[in-house]
Amino acid sequence: MSENAADMLETFPNPHPGRPYLIEHHVQEFTSVCPKTGQPDYATILIRYVAALQCVELKSLKLYLQTYRNRGIFYEDVTNVILNDLVQCLHPRWMQVQTSWSVRGGIRSVITAEHGSKPQEAPAGEGS
Amino acid sequence: MSENAADMLETFPNPHPGRPYLIEHHVQEFTSVCPKTGQPDYATILIRYVAALQCVELKSLKLYLQTYRNRGIFYEDVTNVILNDLVQCLHPRWMQVQTSWSVRGGIRSVITAEHGSKPQEAPAGEGS
Amino acid sequence: MSENAADMLETFPNPHPGRPYLIEHHVQEFTSVCPKTGQPDYATILIRYVAALQCVELKSLKLYLQTYRNRGIFYEDVTNVILNDLVQCLHPRWMQVQTSWSVRGGIRSVITAEHGSKPQEAPAGEGS
Amino acid sequence: MSENAADMLETFPNPHPGRPYLIEHHVQEFTSVCPKTGQPDYATILIRYVAALQCVELKSLKLYLQTYRNRGIFYEDVTNVILNDLVQCLHPRWMQVQTSWSVRGGIRSVITAEHGSKPQEAPAGEGS
Amino acid sequence: MSENAADMLETFPNPHPGRPYLIEHHVQEFTSVCPKTGQPDYATILIRYVAALQCVELKSLKLYLQTYRNRGIFYEDVTNVILNDLVQCLHPRWMQVQTSWSVRGGIRSVITAEHGSKPQEAPAGEGS
Amino acid sequence: MSENAADMLETFPNPHPGRPYLIEHHVQEFTSVCPKTGQPDYATILIRYVAALQCVELKSLKLYLQTYRNRGIFYEDVTNVILNDLVQCLHPRWMQVQTSWSVRGGIRSVITAEHGSKPQEAPAGEGS
Amino acid sequence: MSENAADMLETFPNPHPGRPYLIEHHVQEFTSVCPKTGQPDYATILIRYVAALQCVELKSLKLYLQTYRNRGIFYEDVTNVILNDLVQCLHPRWMQVQTSWSVRGGIRSVITAEHGSKPQEAPAGEGS
Amino acid sequence: MSENAADMLETFPNPHPGRPYLIEHHVQEFTSVCPKTGQPDYATILIRYVAALQCVELKSLKLYLQTYRNRGIFYEDVTNVILNDLVQCLHPRWMQVQTSWSVRGGIRSVITAEHGSKPQEAPAGEGS
Amino acid sequence: MSENAADMLETFPNPHPGRPYLIEHHVQEFTSVCPKTGQPDYATILIRYVAALQCVELKSLKLYLQTYRNRGIFYEDVTNVILNDLVQCLHPRWMQVQTSWSVRGGIRSVITAEHGSKPQEAPAGEGS
Amino acid sequence: MSENAADMLETFPNPHPGRPYLIEHHVQEFTSVCPKTGQPDYATILIRYVAALQCVELKSLKLYLQTYRNRGIFYEDVTNVILNDLVQCLHPRWMQVQTSWSVRGGIRSVITAEHGSKPQEAPAGEGS
Repeated sequence: MSENAADMLETFPNPHPGRPYLIEHHVQEFTSVCPKTGQPDYATILIRYVAALQCVELKSLKLYLQTYRNRGIFYEDVTNVILNDLVQCLHPRWMQVQTSWSVRGGIRSVITAEHGSKPQEAPAGEGS
Repeated sequence: MSENAADMLETFPNPHPGRPYLIEHHVQEFTSVCPKTGQPDYATILIRYVAALQCVELKSLKLYLQTYRNRGIFYEDVTNVILNDLVQCLHPRWMQVQTSWSVRGGIRSVITAEHGSKPQEAPAGEGS
Repeated sequence: MSENAADMLETFPNPHPGRPYLIEHHVQEFTSVCPKTGQPDYATILIRYVAALQCVELKSLKLYLQTYRNRGIFYEDVTNVILNDLVQCLHPRWMQVQTSWSVRGGIRSVITAEHGSKPQEAPAGEGS
Repeated sequence: MSENAADMLETFPNPHPGRPYLIEHHVQEFTSVCPKTGQPDYATILIRYVAALQCVELKSLKLYLQTYRNRGIFYEDVTNVILNDLVQCLHPRWMQVQTSWSVRGGIRSVITAEHGSKPQEAPAGEGS
Repeated sequence: MSENAADMLETFPNPHPGRPYLIEHHVQEFTSVCPKTGQPDYATILIRYVAALQCVELKSLKLYLQTYRNRGIFYEDVTNVILNDLVQCLHPRWMQVQTSWSVRGGIRSVITAEHGSKPQEAPAGEGS
Repeated sequence: MSENAADMLETFPNPHPGRPYLIEHHVQEFTSVCPKTGQPDYATILIRYVAALQCVELKSLKLYLQTYRNRGIFYEDVTNVILNDLVQCLHPRWMQVQTSWSVRGGIRSVITAEHGSKPQEAPAGEGS
Repeated sequence: MSENAADMLETFPNPHPGRPYLIEHHVQEFTSVCPKTGQPDYATILIRYVAALQCVELKSLKLYLQTYRNRGIFYEDVTNVILNDLVQCLHPRWMQVQTSWSVRGGIRSVITAEHGSKPQEAPAGEGS
Repeated sequence: MSENAADMLETFPNPHPGRPYLIEHHVQEFTSVCPKTGQPDYATILIRYVAALQCVELKSLKLYLQTYRNRGIFYEDVTNVILNDLVQCLHPRWMQVQTSWSVRGGIRSVITAEHGSKPQEAPAGEGS
Repeated sequence: MSENAADMLETFPNPHPGRPYLIEHHVQEFTSVCPKTGQPDYATILIRYVAALQCVELKSLKLYLQTYRNRGIFYEDVTNVILNDLVQCLHPRWMQVQTSWSVRGGIRSVITAEHGSKPQEAPAGEGS
Repeated sequence: MSENAADMLETFPNPHPGRPYLIEHHVQEFTSVCPKTGQPDYATILIRYVAALQCVELKSLKLYLQTYRNRGIFYEDVTNVILNDLVQCLHPRWMQVQTSWSVRGGIRSVITAEHGSKPQEAPAGEGS
């Protein structure tokens, strides 16, 4: 669980709550630690959501993600934990978190988790 | 609100109003100012629409977008304000505005807002 | 209207009229003139169709498109006029014309017009 | 018609006939002759199918396609003839043939023909 | 059949079994042997699945795939055998295996096999 | 010879004549006519120079190059004529003109002509 | 001249002055104004140098370059002025400034100016 | 030897013989036959030269290269034979022929042969 | 200084010390901390050298570079310190270290430092 | 040492021994085994040479390189051993072997070894 880290997330009021528009944040720098080998892992993360009443503030998002820098956690787990933390904080109408990991043993992994159903009237966006 | 700036937008009559064809304008140069830090932000903007009776004149669109050059406004807000201004001016059958921002703090953001539903018989176009 | 130019278009009988297959022609060289500024415009054009009884002959298509070389016509208009001329000549089951224009004032435009509905059993092709 | 050439095609039994999986062969080297000008044409060909009881053997497919090397045949025709020959030989559950031709007169053409409907439970594959 | 090799596959409990999220492993190094010519074949493999109770452990997956290094097996067969082995081991809600082979005789082949139907509420992921 | 066209070229005083810096203009839109077939040719042109006392004004350069739009001239000739005209007008310390032509008969041609020797202390620039 | 703006540039002592190593800063966001049309211009800038005793501090470099945001100045001039300001401030062993401008009238321009000779024992770097 | 084929090559007088400019022809379509296996080979060819008094006419070059279509000849040989034929016909100041062959047995080959020394005052061109 | 970290570097005897061949290691994952802001920095590093009697062992190199993970150090400094540590450990005939940093404030930086002169008979390698 | 394997290499007489032309073979499929971990390694190999009296026959080269498939050997060693074997067999005027290895521990390595000096009159080729 990551309650303390999630407390770092800050929000601001969605300036256009009546319209289901799409927000996509491509995080190009993320690193955590493999809990099995203790070796660093590197990923890029794509966070996509349709906000309800709150949007995530970008600087606090950056600082929140930095809390994983020296933390041991598996690919599948960290993807879902980040999603859970953001959902708990923003209560979005829909959210997707996708992590893309650098090559380990000749294998490159991508994990994609989603909360809620994307509103049909929301636009496709760039990420899919 | 941006009434004065929106007054700069000019239109011309849609030469083929009977056909729901798609118009896409890729704006490759856009800059505004972050209202929090006062630092300049840079974006590309994709405007896509199915016109009703009016099309937007390109030179006036360029000048309208230049009014944001020294204006402090958030990513989420400016995307929706541009969409609102264009909708108010063109009354299109459908319109989408997508802004793609340069990297800040290792994060690249894309905001996509839409007005109306794309007519089913309108073509897919290049942008999606 | 462009009757004289359209007269240049030649056709040949569709060799497999029983099958709704897709034909795509990527025209990589097209130029016309901006009716407002008198300056040359450059575009690439993608013509996609499901033929009925006739296919367009490629050399005549090339010569037809060359008639726009010194002609003043707007982006939105020329896209629809080319579509109209080809439809009148080929009576295709479905046709789409997409023009992609070079940058003007920092803006790159793409116009996509369609005639008829693409038969559900026709393949997706390369262009979409 | 191309009976003799089609006789060159060999098959082997589908090792997993119970599962509607997708087979895609990207032929990167194909040449035929333009029946009008006598000039060589060059294409790449994508053959995609869901096999029933037979799969096409790759070496025989290569030799079959080489029979077009010095044969005059139009783009639209050769695409459908290859599809017909393969369908007659393999009786696949679904098949698509797509030919992409090198530039002629500034125009690059792509022809896509399909036989049958792709089973809904078949995967999307790489080619579309 | 490949029972012994499949015994090498290890699993770990899905840390978020309640959510149908997508796991994609891009295997960039795979080699087997052509049973007809005895020549080595090279492929990349994309394994995509929605886990039920178990996820595949990456190091064991790597070692399992290495068992094909000196084994003669056809493209169509190995794709389905890997899928069968993984399904038997993980009992996933849905799984897809796609192999992309290096050029032989000017032809590049891609085989895609799937087990089960992808849950509608699972995200699209990167691989399709 | 092209005296009249060359008269269109305008110059402005080099603002830093004491330093042998490099100026590169990538002209992305150029068209002329093949004197043999009467068919249009398309090229991109790279003009690179170290100015002496004068620099070429960009709008006049654009208009000068438009004079070739309906003029029949061979690749090798037009490259050298443009170089000659610019040299006569600017008297640069060094100049290079490179034209890259679109595919004709499966062949893409590039012609590169130079006037004078590039000063050893001039920087390499982007174009080489 | 740009004395006031240049006053914004800050330096820090070169931590390894005994070694002629190469420093390259790719500035991805720059905008100024065309003195002739009043329209905004956009560029990327590559600054490359071998430091003597001082290195330029990055935040002050960013703020210095922002002073051109609403200033009318020609391509050729701004490139040399930035070079002059940096040279005056850092007294580098060698420095190069290269500006790459977005398309205007179908022409993309690149200006490259250099101060001093690059020490023969300095490495090539990424930028050339 | 290839005297008959070489007879097909036509020339035209170099319009600017006093200047050692560079001519590059990228031949994107070439096919010959492997003399050992009888299988077709495919290549692209880059011909670069500084003309003396004659330039090669492009259509005759295309027809000359088509004479290899059904001729058995090794990579190393055909590269040198084409160079010899062109040199005998054009007597250029310098010429280079480079052939790039499609993959055979997992190996892609490139052969580069040169006649004479490139004049030091000739420009670098695009091809090197 | 970084003595302790440098102690982690292990070597193995150069298996072909008589030949001045080139070794290049592209490190795709590196992170350190900005000493001014405390924020993480990310880089890729290219290490190129001609060995004398010792080569660096790759696993120890990886572990050595991980010691910078939570260490505050400037771009210019870390590049030279890594070079110094490796030189002290390997005594190579020539070595180059190049660090490429992710975007900060719209600026991407590359630092390149070299020890010794590259032997003239050493090959160019991939990295320059 | 690798005498037995090297015995597999076959040659054919250089058809144009009087001209120092360049031969480049890009081997896209190579695998050996890490002698330390027993894990497979994957590489691409670029072999470049100016032949004297003999050229290497491609099929024998392919079979020779396959002898490394299950052999434990380090990056630096295998590069030099392949070079030694080929030199002993062909006695070329000049030869270079470059191996590019897939990522291990976040590091991608490239080793380049050379025999003799490249004749000054030999062309540059594609590979450098």
